[in-house]
Amino acid sequence: MYEYNVTVRFNDCDSMGHVNNTAYFTYFEEARKDIFKLFNPALDIDAWNLIVASTQCDFVNEMNYAQKVSVYTWISRVGTSSFTVEHAIQDDEGRWTARGKAVLAGYDFAERKTVPISEPAASELALHQEGPENVPELRG
Amino acid sequence: MYEYNVTVRFNDCDSMGHVNNTAYFTYFEEARKDIFKLFNPALDIDAWNLIVASTQCDFVNEMNYAQKVSVYTWISRVGTSSFTVEHAIQDDEGRWTARGKAVLAGYDFAERKTVPISEPAASELALHQEGPENVPELRG
Amino acid sequence: MYEYNVTVRFNDCDSMGHVNNTAYFTYFEEARKDIFKLFNPALDIDAWNLIVASTQCDFVNEMNYAQKVSVYTWISRVGTSSFTVEHAIQDDEGRWTARGKAVLAGYDFAERKTVPISEPAASELALHQEGPENVPELRG
Amino acid sequence: MYEYNVTVRFNDCDSMGHVNNTAYFTYFEEARKDIFKLFNPALDIDAWNLIVASTQCDFVNEMNYAQKVSVYTWISRVGTSSFTVEHAIQDDEGRWTARGKAVLAGYDFAERKTVPISEPAASELALHQEGPENVPELRG
Repeated sequence: MYEYNVTVRFNDCDSMGHVNNTAYFTYFEEARKDIFKLFNPALDIDAWNLIVASTQCDFVNEMNYAQKVSVYTWISRVGTSSFTVEHAIQDDEGRWTARGKAVLAGYDFAERKTVPISEPAASELALHQEGPENVPELRG
Repeated sequence: MYEYNVTVRFNDCDSMGHVNNTAYFTYFEEARKDIFKLFNPALDIDAWNLIVASTQCDFVNEMNYAQKVSVYTWISRVGTSSFTVEHAIQDDEGRWTARGKAVLAGYDFAERKTVPISEPAASELALHQEGPENVPELRG
Repeated sequence: MYEYNVTVRFNDCDSMGHVNNTAYFTYFEEARKDIFKLFNPALDIDAWNLIVASTQCDFVNEMNYAQKVSVYTWISRVGTSSFTVEHAIQDDEGRWTARGKAVLAGYDFAERKTVPISEPAASELALHQEGPENVPELRG
Repeated sequence: MYEYNVTVRFNDCDSMGHVNNTAYFTYFEEARKDIFKLFNPALDIDAWNLIVASTQCDFVNEMNYAQKVSVYTWISRVGTSSFTVEHAIQDDEGRWTARGKAVLAGYDFAERKTVPISEPAASELALHQEGPENVPELRG
């Protein structure tokens, strides 16, 4: 399981006074940095080799400006050319604020086509299959 | 079916040179403006009465800076206190670039609780159940 | 003078219920699209040749969700390798909401150095030196 | 002098592969959090009492995805109802990447008018007038 800690920015919040729904996906994207490094250790933009095929999020509780939250990330599936990443966000009082997932695929941007997940990356991903305790189920 | 037209902003794109995954959700949010008006005709922020319970998106094709795209939006379910909105984005060459959905709930922000969908709103939503032809299925 | 029309997005606004200060700069960036086309007619990201050297904005009045505003843009200086762009935003009731400017420089991203403004681009920019009437002065 | 440390998000960067000009202003906004707390210790959105009157930034060097940078913030002027905040960003290699400032004003959002800076806040601000050594001058 990977853990990413983020402090809510003023500009992540919308007129309802809470984090806008789109910013949850930005937090998920940042939480995948350790996974990006498996595929691209220097995080070199010109050598990028993953795309997001789909993503979703259940909004469980609000998050507020300046709040510190943790995004937990784990792997629920590793396929030939894609894998599924699970996310859950917990606030500094232990409340779950979000539950999401994303399907990522290996991708060759020059050739514009999906490519297989390498064996070392697949093996490393397989070591991160366990999520946090008491995490909410995705609603579907 | 509702239609919302948007031109991709420079700042909607990320270092891959295409619209970032989070901006698709911003486009969906703007595409729901006609629905927001059903519940809040003046779009008065202080009288806001809807929340996003969950949302998802399949990324079908890339979108580029300055490209004009259309977001089609329709209703697939109206429940007691929530309803499901379907979205699909088509670019100016007729290609589908995204397929998504969102569950919205009636919400009382002062009381912090969900509230029923009014009969007039439910009836109006029911008039928008048809999506565009040949739209991709959500992957699940 | 160039004119760019934009409708405020929900997600451009922050918890004060108005457009966040950073989104004004996004509107300015979009308003420069006609200028970008002078230097890069197809707006090809891989052939980009301008950078922002500095930018500023006076915030004159608030803008709200779904409001339609116009960004007026004109040129106050054309130098050897840089030029100064002036911006002013007016809302749908004729109120000025912002006054800003940006210094842009010709740039070779491969060589990472500034380059001269071509004569045709400089001549075209010189045709757009007039701003709107009654526009507020920049505060400095 | 205040110091705020931030790690560049993937979504802060644009198609040039570097932090977009608007995100610098988001970093400045976060860097003002300690100042916000002077005026609103709990950072309560419903009791907000400052507005940004103007802001500007010189872009000195690029910043990249995942880079850790520090925003230094100090006070150059305290007036009756407004004050001037200076900002400078330094990357993890000691390079200056940006130099900016913002004018903030005391504001009563209910009455929609500027209000005086309280004596305790003014005194506290006056303790933070020194900036970092060797910081670039603002270009104008």
